[in-house]
Amino acid sequence: MKINKCYSTKKNYVFTEIAQKVESFKQNHPNQKIYNLGIGDVTLPLDTKLVDVMEKALKEQTAKDTFKGYPPETGYDFLKNAIVCTYAQMGIDISIEEVFVSNGAGCDVTNILNLFKDVTSVIADPTYPAYYDSNALCGNDVVLLPLNKSNNYKMSPKNLSCDKSYLIYICSPNNPTGVTLSHDDLDEWVTFANLTKSIILFDNAYQCFIEDNSPKSIFEIDGAKSCAIEIASFSKCAGFTNLRCGYTVVPKSLIRQDMSLNVMWKRHQSTFFNGVPYHIQKGAEFVLTGEGQEICKKNIDYYKQNAKILRQHLLSSKYELLPSNNSPYVWMKIPDGATSWEHFESLLQSYGIVCIPGSGFGKSGEGYIRLSAFAKREDILEACKMLI
Amino acid sequence: MKINKCYSTKKNYVFTEIAQKVESFKQNHPNQKIYNLGIGDVTLPLDTKLVDVMEKALKEQTAKDTFKGYPPETGYDFLKNAIVCTYAQMGIDISIEEVFVSNGAGCDVTNILNLFKDVTSVIADPTYPAYYDSNALCGNDVVLLPLNKSNNYKMSPKNLSCDKSYLIYICSPNNPTGVTLSHDDLDEWVTFANLTKSIILFDNAYQCFIEDNSPKSIFEIDGAKSCAIEIASFSKCAGFTNLRCGYTVVPKSLIRQDMSLNVMWKRHQSTFFNGVPYHIQKGAEFVLTGEGQEICKKNIDYYKQNAKILRQHLLSSKYELLPSNNSPYVWMKIPDGATSWEHFESLLQSYGIVCIPGSGFGKSGEGYIRLSAFAKREDILEACKMLI
Repeated sequence: MKINKCYSTKKNYVFTEIAQKVESFKQNHPNQKIYNLGIGDVTLPLDTKLVDVMEKALKEQTAKDTFKGYPPETGYDFLKNAIVCTYAQMGIDISIEEVFVSNGAGCDVTNILNLFKDVTSVIADPTYPAYYDSNALCGNDVVLLPLNKSNNYKMSPKNLSCDKSYLIYICSPNNPTGVTLSHDDLDEWVTFANLTKSIILFDNAYQCFIEDNSPKSIFEIDGAKSCAIEIASFSKCAGFTNLRCGYTVVPKSLIRQDMSLNVMWKRHQSTFFNGVPYHIQKGAEFVLTGEGQEICKKNIDYYKQNAKILRQHLLSSKYELLPSNNSPYVWMKIPDGATSWEHFESLLQSYGIVCIPGSGFGKSGEGYIRLSAFAKREDILEACKMLI
Repeated sequence: MKINKCYSTKKNYVFTEIAQKVESFKQNHPNQKIYNLGIGDVTLPLDTKLVDVMEKALKEQTAKDTFKGYPPETGYDFLKNAIVCTYAQMGIDISIEEVFVSNGAGCDVTNILNLFKDVTSVIADPTYPAYYDSNALCGNDVVLLPLNKSNNYKMSPKNLSCDKSYLIYICSPNNPTGVTLSHDDLDEWVTFANLTKSIILFDNAYQCFIEDNSPKSIFEIDGAKSCAIEIASFSKCAGFTNLRCGYTVVPKSLIRQDMSLNVMWKRHQSTFFNGVPYHIQKGAEFVLTGEGQEICKKNIDYYKQNAKILRQHLLSSKYELLPSNNSPYVWMKIPDGATSWEHFESLLQSYGIVCIPGSGFGKSGEGYIRLSAFAKREDILEACKMLI
């Protein structure tokens, strides 16, 4: 037995690193108010109706006849059916056996690496750091696709070899840039993945923020069911970051080297995972009802309004931003040539504003910061007064 | 990118397999009552006080000032402190940074394999099937230690090479045999692990059922902090199988190849895991109070009484059992030479009794079945009437 030396990295996970820095700043400046525009974490409280549903389900656990033990590893049928219906409303046909309820997209998008060997992953730079970090900790090869002005901040398979199979991470709208891939962009990826027997891991955590007609699911694209896995979350759309619930769709028609990825993921989840509590799945089911969706919409609108306020203010103050109306994040160029971490420190020390340094999302994020619109409105307004 | 061919196994996870067989039996025999003495899943409802605590914590999530987003990846300090205190009461000194709260022991004991390469695992046969299955799905070498009369059903390092480092799985009381390792037995393992730079994964899921003076934690053994990780669960002791909460203790003094396993597991959990909901951790904290422990004790006593009823009845009916007063399971020899799966089918078809075939826990379990005392009392009593 050897130690996995990939863990010898001195680099912490970026969000852990920032949490530690903010904690230490707080201890040294106990009177400084903190404006948290850092980690993309929701701040609006849960709706009482949602909590009522969960409390009612929890109460069932106090009675002999309604008590439930181990949850099914892939989720309760009531929630899987609700997810199937949600896809059906988008015109997408998914079967209940293709849905795997999980304790969050972050867990699935990383642990899914267990299904593969000799992996070469294709990852946008910058993007959500867990893609790169999980691959690095597994010792996988990674091809980074830098996002920049020349490619309109969009990843494309143009420079990839057609003789190789890849694991391709796509986040659209992309975290942190906010750039959304169009139907044509995704079509190009699906064609490439089917041609090369690659697999797309489509992270649609931010789909609820899309306001134009960009695809909200990879399965809107013809041919995606033979090359893509979709990883979804209740975190950002329904405020579930604390409750921990998401789901992954693995189509039955996704076959590689004669093996069904759907069967493999079921085997994985029944061995490495033990399911999500009943009352939380009941809450997630409520989220997918008409009433639940209305509550979500109100919250999403609030965060989108935050993003608009922040963007309009920063643009009027001559900051350079990426246009990203589909995103709860503002991706801002640092004006004075400071590095991302220098600017992070400067905002924290000067104003108590927490941002995420762009380089935390990848090398190409250097010179940028990400500001989160999941903050409280008053914090957004205060931050605007200071970011001039 | 290649598919992990270890997943080509046609063998389902044994508990999934049994759930499917029982479901199909139910469909074909809709009027047959099922006596579930199969999977070790609690059946007593949650105490209303425990649920009140969780409901109160959930309500905090509806107010702006008390709302919480992402939980800390390693757990809230209030729960980690309560766990530290529980160890202190046992005379064991653990620091808060050594405790990692998780969504269950089953997840930790399998996903921890990510920290290692070129693993040779040492696993008792029979034992909890996730140890073997997770290793098989990772393509690891496994040395099985058969448990039988000649070794008193106890695993020992005697026949292992001293020139190799191993990952050693110890479950005490062992699931399914119920045999508990003594202080001397564990001392031998700790000495061996320190000598060979091996690591012990100590699964103490069933420690609350120990009624003699066998160790309830590996850290009762001198030298364990430099060779052992302890994986614990609220599932069996507090009825948390549905709520999903456990914890893992990784001592800071556990160093291998110049790397701290504590630092590695923190890196793992912050990348591959996103924490446990606040209200569930509040529930777990309550479990560790005096009041919570009294509630747990009542439930544990009920299950232990179930086990006693079952054992006394089976012994008086001349069945051959392993003595296992420390365990919620009865490990029974099949009297007529049938295989475990044949006997499983026969009990299901004849009486609607669900057991777990011994061979599901490993080859040496062939010829045995495991009966779970986590069943409802009335099911235990009815099953006794039929098992004559």
